[in-house]
Amino acid sequence: MHDISQYQDFFISYLKRQNISKEPKNLYEPIEYILGLGGKRMRPVLTLMAAEVFDADYEIALPAAMAVEVFHNFSLVHDDIMDDAPLRRGQVTVHEKWNLNTGILSGDAMLILAYQYFEQYEPTIFRDLAKLFSKTALEVCEGQQWDVDFENRSDVTIPEYLKMIEYKTAVLVAAAMKMGAIVAKTSEKEANLIYDFGLNLGLAFQLQDDYLDAFGDPETFGKQVGGDIIENKKTYLYLKALEFSVPEKASELQKLFSQQLEDNTDKIEKVKLIFNESGASEATQKAIKMYTFKAFETLEKMNINAEKKNILKTFGENLMGRKV
Amino acid sequence: MHDISQYQDFFISYLKRQNISKEPKNLYEPIEYILGLGGKRMRPVLTLMAAEVFDADYEIALPAAMAVEVFHNFSLVHDDIMDDAPLRRGQVTVHEKWNLNTGILSGDAMLILAYQYFEQYEPTIFRDLAKLFSKTALEVCEGQQWDVDFENRSDVTIPEYLKMIEYKTAVLVAAAMKMGAIVAKTSEKEANLIYDFGLNLGLAFQLQDDYLDAFGDPETFGKQVGGDIIENKKTYLYLKALEFSVPEKASELQKLFSQQLEDNTDKIEKVKLIFNESGASEATQKAIKMYTFKAFETLEKMNINAEKKNILKTFGENLMGRKV
Repeated sequence: MHDISQYQDFFISYLKRQNISKEPKNLYEPIEYILGLGGKRMRPVLTLMAAEVFDADYEIALPAAMAVEVFHNFSLVHDDIMDDAPLRRGQVTVHEKWNLNTGILSGDAMLILAYQYFEQYEPTIFRDLAKLFSKTALEVCEGQQWDVDFENRSDVTIPEYLKMIEYKTAVLVAAAMKMGAIVAKTSEKEANLIYDFGLNLGLAFQLQDDYLDAFGDPETFGKQVGGDIIENKKTYLYLKALEFSVPEKASELQKLFSQQLEDNTDKIEKVKLIFNESGASEATQKAIKMYTFKAFETLEKMNINAEKKNILKTFGENLMGRKV
Repeated sequence: MHDISQYQDFFISYLKRQNISKEPKNLYEPIEYILGLGGKRMRPVLTLMAAEVFDADYEIALPAAMAVEVFHNFSLVHDDIMDDAPLRRGQVTVHEKWNLNTGILSGDAMLILAYQYFEQYEPTIFRDLAKLFSKTALEVCEGQQWDVDFENRSDVTIPEYLKMIEYKTAVLVAAAMKMGAIVAKTSEKEANLIYDFGLNLGLAFQLQDDYLDAFGDPETFGKQVGGDIIENKKTYLYLKALEFSVPEKASELQKLFSQQLEDNTDKIEKVKLIFNESGASEATQKAIKMYTFKAFETLEKMNINAEKKNILKTFGENLMGRKV
């Protein structure tokens, strides 16, 4: 097996060999643009890693890894339209650089292109990959819809929130890993175990993203710290704070989360104080640990050698940014 | 074999048996809505017919027919956003009834749902269907992009226009028929012949749509007669009129097609006069006949009995609304 930066290099070199920019250029240039913006390439790297965990060469997993990355970028293009986001990875979003119609249509084309990468596999593998992909893609759409719906609801529960982030984020991490298992032709049992590993890691990752959005180091977090608070997003931190707070504190938090302000410095400080004092911060960190632990527990059940378990565990620990 | 209205009934009854409206309802209700708006169901009917032409039972083709219809409606939902269309089949469009984000996301989900219908087939059939579907879907996106690009160009050629309508409209008619051939497990040769039959019929159909948009009977055409002229659409009629006209007439036409008016009565009459006097109307009718003839010629090459050829020919003649 290789280390993570090597898998990133393998994937990026494969990505660069793809001949994406065809005619009509107004359809394909935006696709090349968004795919070239970078990012950690976490999902395709997981596909390559999973293939090697199950004793296949990473090269056989490259088309599946590409499908996952193209789909992920499709979802970014359409989500950025829905969120009216001006920037993505520090660069102008597709619908801002071109226009709304281009964002919609190039996104549609990416969803189709993702499926086409599976055509490089034999029929049974093709079907297994495409089935998992369709199921996952539909769940991502459902997760996005729940996220939109939650904006206008004041009665979102913790289980509902967890289901939403599972669909919107975790299932794609899980499916990326299972695709590596599928192309490696491992058993259904092992493939499902690595799916569960990815799912729990994905949940931990999203909860940590929620946590860091409020308490992260502005130097290293990459996004604007306090962004979720400014946008009144009902994250795990917020829902736990409501659950744990006495009625007056809960009302204060709800009132703070009904405001749209010019200067958010004061609001962010007040909200963070409630998150800490209510015990919501601690509960979030506990949940992150719990899902990371569940992922590692799944790892123990897998029929792979200790070295490979260690590589996956190290990946999880690095992703979580700390030794647990 | 059955007649067209029977195939319509079979398809509609299958459509009604699908359990589309799930949670989250804001994602699935728009899908149920657009699929319920009706229409002639031409494409799925062609899939069922093609299956029976090649001696399979129509029932085996129902999931493939459904995939075609779901994809067609996906393209309507996203196209209506791009065209800012308020109405579809006389009813409010999805993005108007709900909102932009719902239109984008429900459309995305429909594209994925279409692929899922192929999962009901065995692996090799699944792969053949999904491959044809991806190729076709991507061509439809490219055709839509060319159509958008042509709005801002004054040098569109007839071959370019024909390529655009081939991709935007004809390939889906062709693929709908080939899918019927695939599920019937006919030979590659026959499958490709019925694809060509559908492609030429699709081209004839779109050119006739162009023609009727200007010269159709307002009582029976279904859309606003003169709509393309009002919107300055560079149709086959327009491009042929430019080609055939003396420079002064061509300039007059170009000037008329640069106007956005409140009352279009006069503009429509003037344009139609140029279409007729230049010989563009006649050339369009000739092209329609030529593509219909090419479709029927392909039919002759097929290894099916005379009765079946006649059924396909009758379908073509009915679609073209006249005996040729």
